[in-house]
Amino acid sequence: MSSANQFGSRFTMTSFGESHGTALGVLIDGCPAGVHFDASVLSQELERRRPGHHGSGQIVSGRQETDQPEVLSGVFDGKTLGTPIAIIVRNQDARSQDYEKIQKAPRAGHADDMWKNKFGHSDHRGGGRSSGRETVSRVMAGAVAKMLMNEVSSRTKVIGYASQIGPITLPDADRKNVQNVNVDSFQARFPSKADQQVAELLKKAQESGDSFGGIAEILIQAPPASLGQPVFHKLKSDLAMAFMSVGAANGFELGLGFDSAQVPGTEFHQGAQDVYGGIRGGISTGEDILLRISFKPTSSILDVAKKGRHDPCIVTRAIPVLEAMTWLVLADHYLWAKTDKL
Amino acid sequence: MSSANQFGSRFTMTSFGESHGTALGVLIDGCPAGVHFDASVLSQELERRRPGHHGSGQIVSGRQETDQPEVLSGVFDGKTLGTPIAIIVRNQDARSQDYEKIQKAPRAGHADDMWKNKFGHSDHRGGGRSSGRETVSRVMAGAVAKMLMNEVSSRTKVIGYASQIGPITLPDADRKNVQNVNVDSFQARFPSKADQQVAELLKKAQESGDSFGGIAEILIQAPPASLGQPVFHKLKSDLAMAFMSVGAANGFELGLGFDSAQVPGTEFHQGAQDVYGGIRGGISTGEDILLRISFKPTSSILDVAKKGRHDPCIVTRAIPVLEAMTWLVLADHYLWAKTDKL
Amino acid sequence: MSSANQFGSRFTMTSFGESHGTALGVLIDGCPAGVHFDASVLSQELERRRPGHHGSGQIVSGRQETDQPEVLSGVFDGKTLGTPIAIIVRNQDARSQDYEKIQKAPRAGHADDMWKNKFGHSDHRGGGRSSGRETVSRVMAGAVAKMLMNEVSSRTKVIGYASQIGPITLPDADRKNVQNVNVDSFQARFPSKADQQVAELLKKAQESGDSFGGIAEILIQAPPASLGQPVFHKLKSDLAMAFMSVGAANGFELGLGFDSAQVPGTEFHQGAQDVYGGIRGGISTGEDILLRISFKPTSSILDVAKKGRHDPCIVTRAIPVLEAMTWLVLADHYLWAKTDKL
Amino acid sequence: MSSANQFGSRFTMTSFGESHGTALGVLIDGCPAGVHFDASVLSQELERRRPGHHGSGQIVSGRQETDQPEVLSGVFDGKTLGTPIAIIVRNQDARSQDYEKIQKAPRAGHADDMWKNKFGHSDHRGGGRSSGRETVSRVMAGAVAKMLMNEVSSRTKVIGYASQIGPITLPDADRKNVQNVNVDSFQARFPSKADQQVAELLKKAQESGDSFGGIAEILIQAPPASLGQPVFHKLKSDLAMAFMSVGAANGFELGLGFDSAQVPGTEFHQGAQDVYGGIRGGISTGEDILLRISFKPTSSILDVAKKGRHDPCIVTRAIPVLEAMTWLVLADHYLWAKTDKL
Repeated sequence: MSSANQFGSRFTMTSFGESHGTALGVLIDGCPAGVHFDASVLSQELERRRPGHHGSGQIVSGRQETDQPEVLSGVFDGKTLGTPIAIIVRNQDARSQDYEKIQKAPRAGHADDMWKNKFGHSDHRGGGRSSGRETVSRVMAGAVAKMLMNEVSSRTKVIGYASQIGPITLPDADRKNVQNVNVDSFQARFPSKADQQVAELLKKAQESGDSFGGIAEILIQAPPASLGQPVFHKLKSDLAMAFMSVGAANGFELGLGFDSAQVPGTEFHQGAQDVYGGIRGGISTGEDILLRISFKPTSSILDVAKKGRHDPCIVTRAIPVLEAMTWLVLADHYLWAKTDKL
Repeated sequence: MSSANQFGSRFTMTSFGESHGTALGVLIDGCPAGVHFDASVLSQELERRRPGHHGSGQIVSGRQETDQPEVLSGVFDGKTLGTPIAIIVRNQDARSQDYEKIQKAPRAGHADDMWKNKFGHSDHRGGGRSSGRETVSRVMAGAVAKMLMNEVSSRTKVIGYASQIGPITLPDADRKNVQNVNVDSFQARFPSKADQQVAELLKKAQESGDSFGGIAEILIQAPPASLGQPVFHKLKSDLAMAFMSVGAANGFELGLGFDSAQVPGTEFHQGAQDVYGGIRGGISTGEDILLRISFKPTSSILDVAKKGRHDPCIVTRAIPVLEAMTWLVLADHYLWAKTDKL
Repeated sequence: MSSANQFGSRFTMTSFGESHGTALGVLIDGCPAGVHFDASVLSQELERRRPGHHGSGQIVSGRQETDQPEVLSGVFDGKTLGTPIAIIVRNQDARSQDYEKIQKAPRAGHADDMWKNKFGHSDHRGGGRSSGRETVSRVMAGAVAKMLMNEVSSRTKVIGYASQIGPITLPDADRKNVQNVNVDSFQARFPSKADQQVAELLKKAQESGDSFGGIAEILIQAPPASLGQPVFHKLKSDLAMAFMSVGAANGFELGLGFDSAQVPGTEFHQGAQDVYGGIRGGISTGEDILLRISFKPTSSILDVAKKGRHDPCIVTRAIPVLEAMTWLVLADHYLWAKTDKL
Repeated sequence: MSSANQFGSRFTMTSFGESHGTALGVLIDGCPAGVHFDASVLSQELERRRPGHHGSGQIVSGRQETDQPEVLSGVFDGKTLGTPIAIIVRNQDARSQDYEKIQKAPRAGHADDMWKNKFGHSDHRGGGRSSGRETVSRVMAGAVAKMLMNEVSSRTKVIGYASQIGPITLPDADRKNVQNVNVDSFQARFPSKADQQVAELLKKAQESGDSFGGIAEILIQAPPASLGQPVFHKLKSDLAMAFMSVGAANGFELGLGFDSAQVPGTEFHQGAQDVYGGIRGGISTGEDILLRISFKPTSSILDVAKKGRHDPCIVTRAIPVLEAMTWLVLADHYLWAKTDKL
């Protein structure tokens, strides 16, 4: 029971703003008072989300806005107040754009026509709220959730990375090493020597007007135990919902996921903790949790207006967004667990 | 923002009851008045959920209770009242059971210890609410949701079936033919000649104390268009959440899902409707939607108490539960869409 | 954001059942695990709600059912499980009643026609859910909330009593003495020597086919401090909502209430704690809280079918219901306050 | 089940912002697409809320900010988009103020210490969110709700006025005439010749450092019928909750309210529609609804820092806020009723 743009049951956040409207923003209600508010975490996460942020300008396209967050409420003297925290980022490009030139026809492959049918009236400019730009709100909220979790469970880490882009898959050795590298130092957030190959693949795709799907992985290291509310707000259901709410996501796996279909139970349950994926009965065991999210190839290749400027693969940019959603789920369930027992 | 055992935002249902408690039940709040209440749909869906219901006694184990639903409220003169609909099923076995004999130790592979840690106090008898028996509540609620949808969108069908059990996968030809067969007439709800093979595989597994995971598919035929509430209650996010809340589920795919990673965008977006999976921008297009849910091998093989009586594969029994969750999501979003526009 | 029959944000309860349906019931979701479940508190509160329970048979009318609660779920070994608690009471009279005789026409003054207009289809039998019998659900939920609060704040008491019935008002001396008497020992729960006068007034009214309104007061002694969530879930707003949801209630006062209009601020703010009513800025101070609820005269005098059996005044019977609502608000806010700060 | 700063179940709004923070704002989620957005309604309602707006500068004190609303999202081409509508007003005074001078001690009679105790950390500047300035958010949301209702139920009017200030009460003749006058043209929104007397009373109170409580009345003319969701979201319960969430409000009456205690039922139920107050069984009948809200004398008289600048009576300024809350309840229930029946 939520409104359409609201996420979470205890640590709640509502996302707002159109891609070419005045501002994007988020409103957090339910964050406890007394959390140290580190503005640098906020800027840093926004910077990580920004197109072309880490030397990967040639891979990911998009507007070159510096997203300057403005905290409107809920923080005082460097700490949260327990009141709603509103943060906005203004759309700088939007100000000067020539509205007349923007195509009024729905863009092929985009959700524009779906919104138009559903709501009768829609903001065609740059996709409105179906634009990837909406994720600015999620990243800002996730940054605050991260601040909270960093204080209450400092060992918990959330590490996101690409594990497949088009036909190129991450070697197992690299996956096991992911906590020892800086994922952001890889152009495609593909933490492997093959990153260079991926970059070339995507460059070529961009030039030829093609795109690729891919798979992102989220590793939650040392999550608090006992998070998750059976039966409908199991940790895995809320994580699945969180990830599937991201634009082009079309698949979710916990632990072995689909591959577990083929493994006989006697084998599967030998190394129990690994394969359970750190969640049992919908509740975190305290062990690491591995999640995989698949993305379809970007549809912007069909958008003539974007020719040559389209994102050849969305996975790299999606990583900070998926991490944000993970922090939100953790913070929400951390607070929820406070009332589990007397 | 929901309570832990509540599902849905408009058509809401709360599940209650412990496996060996007095009763299982569901409370629906938000069903409109005037829906014809067909008690036979309710019985039929419960019957489909029941272990050993369709000649598959040898494959699926479980208590041989006839689940007799009792409608406590919300229905009068054959129609819903717009008031809360409570339906219960009493646990017949529970009455006579010898509580003393029930093991107090958490069962390996089960969620018993997770619940114990989280809540401090738990009902160890048969898994309490972590038992598969909890799905009785979901099936009852789903039956009511189905009654509603049958009236307002009579062309919409939800067809569930097993598409992989252990190493055996459903041939594409059979998948394409699924709407022309009676899935329940197949022992393992594996709608193919290979059903017999599956049955043998599972029989052997049961005898040898092994189990298998598998994959279920849900085909939504002719769903109403314009269902789904961006950005957090997209149809795909709510479906993912619904399915991932089911016991051993550990993977979700919409349309091509994980396989879409490898397909170049130019190819993927050619046959747009198929690969989008009937949902675009989180909103149903009105075209068919194909969903896949993976299940890990049942852990009951580790449960010495259940030796020889365990379920060798959970997928067959999960089908009516997944269908119920699908009807619940559809009914919820059908009502939600009533306020999309003036 | 709630369903229509659900109350509370953390300790949530949903009420269900029609007056002449199969059963009345309540489903509590959000009660922490480990609360000692005292079935005698439940029976006792139901008994207090029952018409003619305390020698006042001649004043309050109604069905002479002994309401036997059955706990269906959520309790094990004498303690709550942290899972949903469902409790029902069957409608015994309902079984044998002659449905044919029940008038199909809406009863004057009753809400029957309102329900009919709104929902199109309604249960005319005895008012359906607009009947006072629905309060059985509230009293059962309130009893569980009381069990929780008794454990966590044992000094907190909720004392309800009638302070005005028709033209007869409670002397101030009696009001001040209310915590030293047993309110239930007074026929009209009017804790004064004037109770006898009230009884006679009501007897006469019943005989002459008349009725009276009245005022109930709820004294919360030693509530926990810091309860209440500004700005919309202030303790006073949630209490007002709780009380105004009761049938014939049409007025609410905190502390001095309407009388405070006439008192100059310099005077009003001298004896601050009294007049603030134990709530400041919407948050409990820990001091006693006095609440007043007015009720209109019962409309059943217009109901020819009930001639001579109508309730001449609803206030006496409303007391246990108001107390239950108070416990529910306290329990809800007690849990909510757990996440106020780090 | 709501977050603390959120109001409404279908048409939801979340209020944010501290009195001396960067901005006040509101986020509406659930407004249907296609509502004509009339910015002048927004400005006009904000102007009506502003201290000293209608020649009553001498009565109501406060900061002389012109509140310029900025719509950040949810509106395009003059119509709502069905997406979240965020509107903010910047705190102009806040920029230049000397924070050093602001007293750190909790102000007597204010809620400052309550917030401090509850949250551990609070914004002492001007009361933070316990300040009356928070009502800017409510008025903005109410303006949007009014735009929606104006389109769907153009005959519905909400008329607020003061009916008692200190010892001076509104003559019945004036009350009956209220729909024929412009309430805002009266200095104290006391629609009577006695308005001048009230003004003098308040002037004197201000000079002598005293204050008065009072009573506001809200008349809902021609509301849509069938609004209200039994049993917990009856129209009267949601209205009571809405009004009691306003700062100094401490009493609520529907129709006759507390006075109905003394009227015998035979008399009360003669002129049924009047005395029922347009709500029966918690559902609007379509007839006019009269609501009364009492306010305690302002506590700012105890605030030495405000000496001579305090509000001598809050009722006049509360009128536009109460009207806004009324529109919010109506819009919420208008949408909710869309799913009452098939």
